[in-house]
Amino acid sequence: MVTVNRNYLKLPGSYLFSTIAKKVKAYKEANPQAKVISLGIGDVTQPLVPAVIEALHKAVEEMGHAETFHGYAPDLGYEFLRTAIAKNDYQHRGCHIEADEIFVSDGAKSDSGNIQEIFGLDNKVAVCDPVYPVYVDTNVMAGRTGDYSQERGNFDGVIYMPCKEENGFVPELPKEVPDLIYLCFPNNPTGGAITKDQLQEWVDYANKNGSVIIYDAAYEAYITQDNVPHSIYECEGARTCAIELRSFSKNAGFTGVRLGFTVVPKELVRDNVSLHSLWARRHGTKFNGAPYIVQRAGEAVYSDEGKAQLKEQVGYYQRNAKAILDGLSQAGFTVSGGVNAPYIWLKTPDKMASWDFFDYLLEKANVVGTPGSGFGAHGEGFFRLTAFGTYENTLEAIERIKNL
Amino acid sequence: MVTVNRNYLKLPGSYLFSTIAKKVKAYKEANPQAKVISLGIGDVTQPLVPAVIEALHKAVEEMGHAETFHGYAPDLGYEFLRTAIAKNDYQHRGCHIEADEIFVSDGAKSDSGNIQEIFGLDNKVAVCDPVYPVYVDTNVMAGRTGDYSQERGNFDGVIYMPCKEENGFVPELPKEVPDLIYLCFPNNPTGGAITKDQLQEWVDYANKNGSVIIYDAAYEAYITQDNVPHSIYECEGARTCAIELRSFSKNAGFTGVRLGFTVVPKELVRDNVSLHSLWARRHGTKFNGAPYIVQRAGEAVYSDEGKAQLKEQVGYYQRNAKAILDGLSQAGFTVSGGVNAPYIWLKTPDKMASWDFFDYLLEKANVVGTPGSGFGAHGEGFFRLTAFGTYENTLEAIERIKNL
Repeated sequence: MVTVNRNYLKLPGSYLFSTIAKKVKAYKEANPQAKVISLGIGDVTQPLVPAVIEALHKAVEEMGHAETFHGYAPDLGYEFLRTAIAKNDYQHRGCHIEADEIFVSDGAKSDSGNIQEIFGLDNKVAVCDPVYPVYVDTNVMAGRTGDYSQERGNFDGVIYMPCKEENGFVPELPKEVPDLIYLCFPNNPTGGAITKDQLQEWVDYANKNGSVIIYDAAYEAYITQDNVPHSIYECEGARTCAIELRSFSKNAGFTGVRLGFTVVPKELVRDNVSLHSLWARRHGTKFNGAPYIVQRAGEAVYSDEGKAQLKEQVGYYQRNAKAILDGLSQAGFTVSGGVNAPYIWLKTPDKMASWDFFDYLLEKANVVGTPGSGFGAHGEGFFRLTAFGTYENTLEAIERIKNL
Repeated sequence: MVTVNRNYLKLPGSYLFSTIAKKVKAYKEANPQAKVISLGIGDVTQPLVPAVIEALHKAVEEMGHAETFHGYAPDLGYEFLRTAIAKNDYQHRGCHIEADEIFVSDGAKSDSGNIQEIFGLDNKVAVCDPVYPVYVDTNVMAGRTGDYSQERGNFDGVIYMPCKEENGFVPELPKEVPDLIYLCFPNNPTGGAITKDQLQEWVDYANKNGSVIIYDAAYEAYITQDNVPHSIYECEGARTCAIELRSFSKNAGFTGVRLGFTVVPKELVRDNVSLHSLWARRHGTKFNGAPYIVQRAGEAVYSDEGKAQLKEQVGYYQRNAKAILDGLSQAGFTVSGGVNAPYIWLKTPDKMASWDFFDYLLEKANVVGTPGSGFGAHGEGFFRLTAFGTYENTLEAIERIKNL
């Protein structure tokens, strides 16, 4: 008789953002006149920039002619894109990363969910708390955790590293040494950043203990401060302990285009096995490459025009972040994030529970955000707002919240 | 200390098609004047049809304007595409499949590799032999098999179902009842087809024993005979035992565009759990939707123009298949497949080993095919040719083989 993967049954309820979408839908149906503004899910609102649109049209045209048609892509990504990434995102920043250490994918969500597959089931996983749900959920599904504790609001067998006001939302090095350490900086959901010196401590800790850091740098384009690293490979020794996940969603608005990549340095060996070769095998067996036209769009992100246009686009969202941060701060809220990240982390007033504040904001201000508790137990009492709305909507949302 | 997923280490050598690519590259470098024709990997050569190109350009244009920009897609696929699929691929054929039983993905390779994740590790897997390598490899990687036996050329703990000349390349019902049964018809690599009556026997067998059939129908567009089913849901009772995988790669030339889908009927329950809900959870957690522009391209496949243009494109490849089949048959080779599939299965002359024949053909005729043994032990002594070349190259390759 067929058995199912019963680890799935440990997952409580549905995916956070599905729950929010359902609540918002119900509210809109009950209040059709309400003008609801979403600063909730991290989806962008600005169109693709002209350089990317042009590259897409050109690639589409190529696909329509036999001489320039492209069938199966190389599993690991086209050379033109891997080279552009290696050069612009790494070598220009002084990081030693080669093109063949870059694995192009259909996005960082897939990669951050799939990367755990190359590790044994007996590894102990550490995550920040609060945290992007995919890291934990995919480890639960794989069987690397215990059961969900309703009381604690998290899973047995996972090392949760609290990110609190007191530590500036950067976790302390855990006392119990984890095998796999998921770090995301600039952080989702808190918008907090890590300095290069702080990150170096993590790299040293991982190297000393033989741990592997899975470093999600999806929001690096939003960094404004000099001492905040764009890549973990800016730290010495990261090539022997870190995998980096990167996305085109937030620096180029590719949420609906789907492109990302993972970096696995060739020096990264554990259990006497090259993680680079394991990921190459995984990628080559369970994935068939990102679309040619999308990889050409990715290449355009690194052209001179693309860079200039995207600097402006990111600047647009950064201005939103500042508007939220300043506005809410003036209104007397305790807010953080937003300086090196597109996320603002808001402390709910009067210790209101996160989901209560969600309902309150939806009903009283018609503004949608994300309850901090949806990201983990230590997110309780907090609330995430994103800078990805339009400027006009962002200003209006802030006005409405101010006037509550 | 970090441990790796040691199941990966059971996999012998590299992925079949990487090995072929390396051999061909080496030959070309040593013989730069050779005009090598590939009828090897199942990649298409004809450009995307005009209806698809038009849809792509239109969708790209939408992505360039704020009012029509599309960010994150629904995890499970856009309604417009799921509805078109349900209507055209299923309801028009009399199959009861609803739009919300269709999960849009980035291609059938990903789906056929990922689908095993929703099942327990204790399930016994059955595959045809020879077989598309991804089914077995991904089960090996998950830990659902034993070790690789160099002697037998396959894995312990897997039920291999021989597809031989004697059984017309359709396997017999296995005596040891498997839990998960992978079937691909029209078949890759043999090009063999299964009749509706034969497939009904498998459906009945699965329902009787509580097994699940994972039915890969990637090549259904090539079916020319009336008694050959396009979908397993043409069989009575399939909704309670079968998952179907479908691709846009071969019916619409999307190998470099990346689009596919999986059908999981809501009645499909095992171990008291709905497989539909498990796959929805998997899809929603580890995947973030296919690109908007690609889903619009998929929609165009079902437009009147798209259908007419693609009928012609598939006809082009079918003509190739016939040319290979007739040509090699006249030349005295024993060939099968090609009538309901884009693959021709050739018996090597004089019991030559498959890889020897590969080398022979590459060196003497500069023609690349795929060694049958690369697909499994029972593929030894066979060789796969594909109909996806250009007509001119296909004719020339056949001439060269004839003249050997």
